[in-house]
Amino acid sequence: MNSPKKDFPVSQARRFLEPGPVVLISSRWNGRDNIMTLGWYTILEFTPSLWGAMISSGNCSYEMIRRSGQCIVNLPTVDQIDTVSRIGNSSGDEIDKFDEYDLTKARADYVDAPTIAECHASFECRLYDDTLVASRNFFIFEIVKARVAERPVHPKTLHYIGGGAFITAGNVTSRKALFTKVT
Amino acid sequence: MNSPKKDFPVSQARRFLEPGPVVLISSRWNGRDNIMTLGWYTILEFTPSLWGAMISSGNCSYEMIRRSGQCIVNLPTVDQIDTVSRIGNSSGDEIDKFDEYDLTKARADYVDAPTIAECHASFECRLYDDTLVASRNFFIFEIVKARVAERPVHPKTLHYIGGGAFITAGNVTSRKALFTKVT
Repeated sequence: MNSPKKDFPVSQARRFLEPGPVVLISSRWNGRDNIMTLGWYTILEFTPSLWGAMISSGNCSYEMIRRSGQCIVNLPTVDQIDTVSRIGNSSGDEIDKFDEYDLTKARADYVDAPTIAECHASFECRLYDDTLVASRNFFIFEIVKARVAERPVHPKTLHYIGGGAFITAGNVTSRKALFTKVT
Repeated sequence: MNSPKKDFPVSQARRFLEPGPVVLISSRWNGRDNIMTLGWYTILEFTPSLWGAMISSGNCSYEMIRRSGQCIVNLPTVDQIDTVSRIGNSSGDEIDKFDEYDLTKARADYVDAPTIAECHASFECRLYDDTLVASRNFFIFEIVKARVAERPVHPKTLHYIGGGAFITAGNVTSRKALFTKVT
């Protein structure tokens, strides 16, 4: 279990999302909650804290997120690899994933959707730019609130490579001395 | 040194890009070649093989890529961490990065830009959708040719976390048995 989550600057969400881990997107619409896995996303800006995601319209979550204009990014770690795999291979049309996978709903501050208590971090998001939603299923969100567990400082995240396999995050190496401007 | 690169299916580029490694983008315009680092990108589609990138307009490469409509994604590995850091902290306005960092230009098949021979993989790209270039510096490219070193099968990639530090790719773990549809 991670240490309790603390408030974290939204402009620094890239610290956890830029390295490319698979994340769990929770959403709520019309009295229903759901979770999907997501690996096709990128950071887009520090301030406002923007990121973009390709969410396939085949996902149950697609309409929930499009209609609510909200979602939460939850960051899972290697101990959750089975749960992550199962979430990505089941449909919210058929099961309640929170119940099925024994996940705890925690209240978000600014978004009407549940965060996943067991995850290392949560990023509450509002839809910011839907220009490419109709043509490419590409959503741009603003992170309006971030909460991150204080320990471990470098969580062992999962990075999907296809074929049912994940790379897990390895060592951290600094080359700060070679950086002229550290962001 | 990696083994020689072989042709690789463009639809499977996600195998290397979805886990989120920092990549080196090479480009050519008006008789000049340049290289930039990129961590803000995502896979968008298998076929056509699309990916999207936020390329800051402050980069020398921005105009080169916008005008040529082409670029090459080169995948570096942990042995190149110093070179990657230096490329990301210098400007093509001031130096020739191929010369300065002793990188070897290799010829691309479909794109008029040099690939970086020392990298594990190269993905030749053409600009596919510029809808969000003016408003958000977000370019969507199609990968038209992929070449990947055969070994190692799982290259030790670098994943930038800000502050001059990188996570290196760790172990690979399969959960294929939990996947209902493996892509």
